[in-house]
Amino acid sequence: MRYKLIVSYDGSNYHGFQKQNNGLGVEEVIETALFQITKEETNIVGSGRTDRGVHAYGQVCHFDSSVNLQESNWTKALNTFLPSDIRVISVTEVSDDFHARFHAKKKKYSYVITRKYDLFKRNHQTYIHYPLDVRLMKEALMDFVGKHDFYGFSTYVINKPTIKEIFEATLTEDGDKIVISFVADGFLKYMVRSMVGTLIDIGRGKLSKDIVKEVLESKDRSKAGKTAKPEGLYLEYVLYDE
Amino acid sequence: MRYKLIVSYDGSNYHGFQKQNNGLGVEEVIETALFQITKEETNIVGSGRTDRGVHAYGQVCHFDSSVNLQESNWTKALNTFLPSDIRVISVTEVSDDFHARFHAKKKKYSYVITRKYDLFKRNHQTYIHYPLDVRLMKEALMDFVGKHDFYGFSTYVINKPTIKEIFEATLTEDGDKIVISFVADGFLKYMVRSMVGTLIDIGRGKLSKDIVKEVLESKDRSKAGKTAKPEGLYLEYVLYDE
Repeated sequence: MRYKLIVSYDGSNYHGFQKQNNGLGVEEVIETALFQITKEETNIVGSGRTDRGVHAYGQVCHFDSSVNLQESNWTKALNTFLPSDIRVISVTEVSDDFHARFHAKKKKYSYVITRKYDLFKRNHQTYIHYPLDVRLMKEALMDFVGKHDFYGFSTYVINKPTIKEIFEATLTEDGDKIVISFVADGFLKYMVRSMVGTLIDIGRGKLSKDIVKEVLESKDRSKAGKTAKPEGLYLEYVLYDE
Repeated sequence: MRYKLIVSYDGSNYHGFQKQNNGLGVEEVIETALFQITKEETNIVGSGRTDRGVHAYGQVCHFDSSVNLQESNWTKALNTFLPSDIRVISVTEVSDDFHARFHAKKKKYSYVITRKYDLFKRNHQTYIHYPLDVRLMKEALMDFVGKHDFYGFSTYVINKPTIKEIFEATLTEDGDKIVISFVADGFLKYMVRSMVGTLIDIGRGKLSKDIVKEVLESKDRSKAGKTAKPEGLYLEYVLYDE
């Protein structure tokens, strides 16, 4: 039986979603919980990595198991064995050819910036103490929308297609908080954090608002802004043709 | 010179405010930062303990130092050396007879309950999955107000005065969140958590709403509710005659 698992996690204490040599990944913790339930070695396949310190509301994975539990019992059993910073939202039986990574059609990421330091949210939003010109950031944001080669907004991408389509990009301001969201058919390594870092540098006046177009055209990473910190980043959801 | 320090901290990663043999206290971390600034061994005296996992918006301490810095420079220097989960709000010079514990006149504690589990706030609010009758809790809450012997709502209190006056007690509901606050001339060990635990047991129908009066009169801890968990508790402020 193949199962699709939707899981949320607080990435603060993990070295990213995937297994790491140098630290614990969320994936490994879920596999350990599955082993405790099924007594079978079970590999999970995620829709993609998230970096160290990055969070998820709805990461999607699949796994195969000969154990046949009711969907709600999978969820209950997993949440019993998982630590409190990883919570399974749902487990559903899917066809054997479902693939969490290859069949992902759309993903949404959100990035939360605050201009007021909050001790209790220090791992869950990125504090920026510079004044930001939000109007300029909004204008530049629109240049990301569409099908582009995002090579200049990524890092460590070798021999992989770098053309992605961003369907939607929004920036909302709520008091001291700024939330920037992207819906795309896929994202490259460090892509959201590079885009957000560039927008921050535009907002504080370090980069011109035309830099987005320039980096997309030149594919020159060195022209873009700094990679934004991981703590503000959330994988919101992954969508499939279903 | 004597200084008064107001500090906020996220207690999640500490074994309480005071130095502990078995784990790191917030106090010790502040003393280490003071040593890094002044190169003097400096003891701080807090307004009182907070338990392991309990937070503070405005804990107050005093310390003596031969080092004479501007008030704003103390704050900046301390925040440079302190970890991100402890933030100094202010440092002010006070008279030599100011005492953070003996001269405290009023303290406010708040306790945050949620009825919707939030992964990202698991260390900062207490999740209750039982339905709660908030009206009953509000009624019982009023019985705490006034001057009473709170021995029955404390633990490990030996040879200390147990009569305290609660000036104000409030319960506010906001969606899934319930915030219970107490302003008093002082609190005994585990007092707020015992009072809140009793209110929770009243809200879920395990205890009668008259139990508050009964415990205050009988001083019988065994009749009260369970001690509520630490993660929802915040020391809001400490006031002095100034």
